Amino acid sequence: MTEATTEASTGEPVSFQTEPSRYRHWRLSTDGAVATLVMDVDEQGGLRPGYELKLNSYDLGVDIELYDAVQRLRFEHPEVAVVVLTSGKEKIFSAGANIRMLAAAPHAWKVNFCKFTNETRGAMEDASANSGQAWLAALNGTASGGGYELALACEHIMLVDDRSSTVSLPELPLLGVLPGTGGLTRVVDKRHVRRDRADYFATKSEGLGGPKAAGWRLVDEVVPRPGWDEAVAARAAELAGQSARSPAGAAGIRLDPLAKERGPDRISYPHVTAVLDREAGTAEITVTGPDGEPPADAAGILAEGAGFWTLAVTRALDDLILDLRTNELELGTWVLRTEGDARRVLGYDALVARAAADGDWLATEILLYLKRTLKRLDVTSRSLIALIEPGSCFAGSLLELALAADRSYMLDGTFEDDGDDRPAPEIVVGELNSGPLPMANGLSRLAARFLGDEAGLDAVTKQAGEPLGAAEAEELGLVTFAPDDIDWADEVRIATEERASFSPDALTGLEANFRFAGPETMETKIFGRLAAWQNWIFNRPNASGPDGALRAFGTGQRARFDRKRV
Amino acid sequence: MTEATTEASTGEPVSFQTEPSRYRHWRLSTDGAVATLVMDVDEQGGLRPGYELKLNSYDLGVDIELYDAVQRLRFEHPEVAVVVLTSGKEKIFSAGANIRMLAAAPHAWKVNFCKFTNETRGAMEDASANSGQAWLAALNGTASGGGYELALACEHIMLVDDRSSTVSLPELPLLGVLPGTGGLTRVVDKRHVRRDRADYFATKSEGLGGPKAAGWRLVDEVVPRPGWDEAVAARAAELAGQSARSPAGAAGIRLDPLAKERGPDRISYPHVTAVLDREAGTAEITVTGPDGEPPADAAGILAEGAGFWTLAVTRALDDLILDLRTNELELGTWVLRTEGDARRVLGYDALVARAAADGDWLATEILLYLKRTLKRLDVTSRSLIALIEPGSCFAGSLLELALAADRSYMLDGTFEDDGDDRPAPEIVVGELNSGPLPMANGLSRLAARFLGDEAGLDAVTKQAGEPLGAAEAEELGLVTFAPDDIDWADEVRIATEERASFSPDALTGLEANFRFAGPETMETKIFGRLAAWQNWIFNRPNASGPDGALRAFGTGQRARFDRKRV
Repeated sequence: MTEATTEASTGEPVSFQTEPSRYRHWRLSTDGAVATLVMDVDEQGGLRPGYELKLNSYDLGVDIELYDAVQRLRFEHPEVAVVVLTSGKEKIFSAGANIRMLAAAPHAWKVNFCKFTNETRGAMEDASANSGQAWLAALNGTASGGGYELALACEHIMLVDDRSSTVSLPELPLLGVLPGTGGLTRVVDKRHVRRDRADYFATKSEGLGGPKAAGWRLVDEVVPRPGWDEAVAARAAELAGQSARSPAGAAGIRLDPLAKERGPDRISYPHVTAVLDREAGTAEITVTGPDGEPPADAAGILAEGAGFWTLAVTRALDDLILDLRTNELELGTWVLRTEGDARRVLGYDALVARAAADGDWLATEILLYLKRTLKRLDVTSRSLIALIEPGSCFAGSLLELALAADRSYMLDGTFEDDGDDRPAPEIVVGELNSGPLPMANGLSRLAARFLGDEAGLDAVTKQAGEPLGAAEAEELGLVTFAPDDIDWADEVRIATEERASFSPDALTGLEANFRFAGPETMETKIFGRLAAWQNWIFNRPNASGPDGALRAFGTGQRARFDRKRV
Repeated sequence: MTEATTEASTGEPVSFQTEPSRYRHWRLSTDGAVATLVMDVDEQGGLRPGYELKLNSYDLGVDIELYDAVQRLRFEHPEVAVVVLTSGKEKIFSAGANIRMLAAAPHAWKVNFCKFTNETRGAMEDASANSGQAWLAALNGTASGGGYELALACEHIMLVDDRSSTVSLPELPLLGVLPGTGGLTRVVDKRHVRRDRADYFATKSEGLGGPKAAGWRLVDEVVPRPGWDEAVAARAAELAGQSARSPAGAAGIRLDPLAKERGPDRISYPHVTAVLDREAGTAEITVTGPDGEPPADAAGILAEGAGFWTLAVTRALDDLILDLRTNELELGTWVLRTEGDARRVLGYDALVARAAADGDWLATEILLYLKRTLKRLDVTSRSLIALIEPGSCFAGSLLELALAADRSYMLDGTFEDDGDDRPAPEIVVGELNSGPLPMANGLSRLAARFLGDEAGLDAVTKQAGEPLGAAEAEELGLVTFAPDDIDWADEVRIATEERASFSPDALTGLEANFRFAGPETMETKIFGRLAAWQNWIFNRPNASGPDGALRAFGTGQRARFDRKRV
């Protein structure tokens, strides 16, 4: 982690790859069905210079390690049914995001940091909800701000009752910003704290502890310090007993380090490549299909482990999204391509879907991970343009990339003048397009595309498994435009050049609204409404100006506010 | 309208009161069941100096007249079942919000302007959905930006097909902001335009017309110019035929000018008073109950007309909310009180509810107007604190004020030392609290309060009609705190002083999130997610900075963008 810095400095790009032996801030251990993840932040271990991570406060580097732990618990520990999240410090669980770091960070860094942190909290909830791996927050000291928000992402919250430990959301009274990682939403929408109590709680910087915290549903239970360890262990055992995870004798797979190469203008992994065109402001991303036929069954997936195509592609995409989002802010358009054999993609998809339906833990985890990675793409503030060209394999799982895009262009016919003798491209709707990979709003990307158009959705679903040419795909509404060889180059060039000429901020707002038509969930609220308000507040002088509350915190100066309500 | 100016100037406060004979920008006429509202903006009639309202572009003054027309159509014209909205200009329906006005306006003005505009669009949709008064957009020329968004709020959109008239959302490509009055949401969530087509449409500044606009569902039909008038008339007649409105022979009531007095520190109406305390940053709002018993039946409501207590209170509250929101930006906390007889309030409520259930048009309109006014309170960016004291009448319709508040304080007992011999306050849950006055998210304020707590909601509902003292109200969860005489003054003082010390921006974000827990609707999306993104964009240098797109528009200079995606 130490080599990583922020985009604001001239140092190396931030890396999201780590492993438990390199953790500086966490200790992960397992004992049968129960894992324990101890937060013990190294004060001197900040990702960049200029702040100390006191009181288990965190920065992006701390959260990168947490994300790694979340992933490894899913893939390397099928035996773990409960993750006990606790602190290695005395009297403090976590003070939340580091304020000095936030105050000094550029706006884009704040926003990116909150987004990644939110995604990791979401992955914890996904583990509790869909993977039989429940997270248990054992708050052995005060959890404030982001520390409490971390607990809110857990299935069950225990707070030590020692007359001093509390939970709190002091962001508004102390910093003039919102709890930035879902706290407001989860308090009322997940834990159903009454809205007027939530209002009081979120303005009371010292927070609440003891029986009142439990009575208001801020935590699930309070436990005196004597007997704390036993109570936590008993609750963990109880949750483990309720889990459907822990397949008898299952051994995990190892998430080997990614074979990633990162040059100044190119990032590559075995199945994913990105070419960075700084002049055009684009990243040209190509995902390649499987090199061969899928293994015969679930045992084959396990044997291939992290090398299994679907998992390898997902890991590479996940890392690439995070890398580009964090390190390449000026590449505003991502051009998405695929290369390979659609039939093989569908073969891998079918194997994973079948094995997951049969209850195979690894296939289930791979599908859930692919779901989370595609969701990460959905909330990425970059324009996404899919190009469907000869040689491509937009089928099933990879068709999701085109469905996630803001627009898609599919060549009608072949590139006749380029000496390219590959046949006209085809796309295939597969079984993974109709349910197993929902967006954050609960809809499949196909259903979101055909919102309010049941007939259109039915027509597409009926074509599942059939290779579709450009004219047919356009007619069915699966692609935006289907230019022929003569128009292709101009149309695509205009689309990307035009995108680069627009206000990056307005594009972010536009895309965030169009990508999430239809129903809303707690998750879409967090990435939509809550994040948008927070971004606005982050950008206001009352928070980030020279006299703003974020800058004034800890200086002894009082923040000065423009009192106008907007 | 001419005396009105913005809060940025030193002039008079903006007034929201007008009437058709004073309109400068609209012509309202009726012919049986069909009303025609012609937009014909006076270029020189801007609310403030510095811009010309060319091409039927609008500012707040234009929208105040539109809002007045919407209200009068509901109350003065029970015979009108269809409102044809069209333009009095050649070749142009409306160019949307005036750009020079927007570019020059302070941030708070932009946000307030968009909010009011959104509320008026919502009132048009409410008329189509709930009042049998369908709005028909007859676009006899190009409708761009806010002009098209105005059409999107209508039930049916007709566009003239003359090879030049289009609909468009050019905000992003031309101005670097979002369509600010629901356009993005309505395109995908109401009209179900496919998201990738919506993306293309909202980046194409010249828009789309002709059969393609209809094919993409951007409009409902296109009609050649020859025969346009006849086609519009035929469609209006058809919609009128489908309406359940038009009670035979019903005559409307007259919305007399409000008896409003506005001094520097006090605004008053017959049943509503606001004391403006600029030092404390509060507006102390008191609503008084009925002076006597309600009339016996629906005929009595009609006879009293605009003087009928429920309607008079609603009109006063509506105007007061708009006045304070627009003209008193630094009064960040509104303290809500009532005075009067709870039994009489419930008597008026019961009459209105019964008459509306029996199909009386006026009672129905009064309920719908009260609903819209309470919704306006919900989206107001001010802290709302309800104080329930001796002499108050928080019952039924007026209890909604306490339920809309961010917090409520109810005195437990009496003011013993103040020579105040009034009995301890009581509140009463009435029939209007359980459904007829839903929030924008579709929930009653009681249901939103007890989100996820069915038992709590049931317990409250069982007490309907019973006067509840402070201890009982607190136990049931109907009030936040119930201090006694000894603690009252300190607790209330601390709550309001503390509120005034917090960041106004963070409070806006906090309240917007806590007030709208639970489900989302198109309406909550527009006031929540879309508005928050737009506010963020408005506040960014890429839009509003010296080189931003809003400022650069029309100057011949190209906007210069910070290309970082956030």
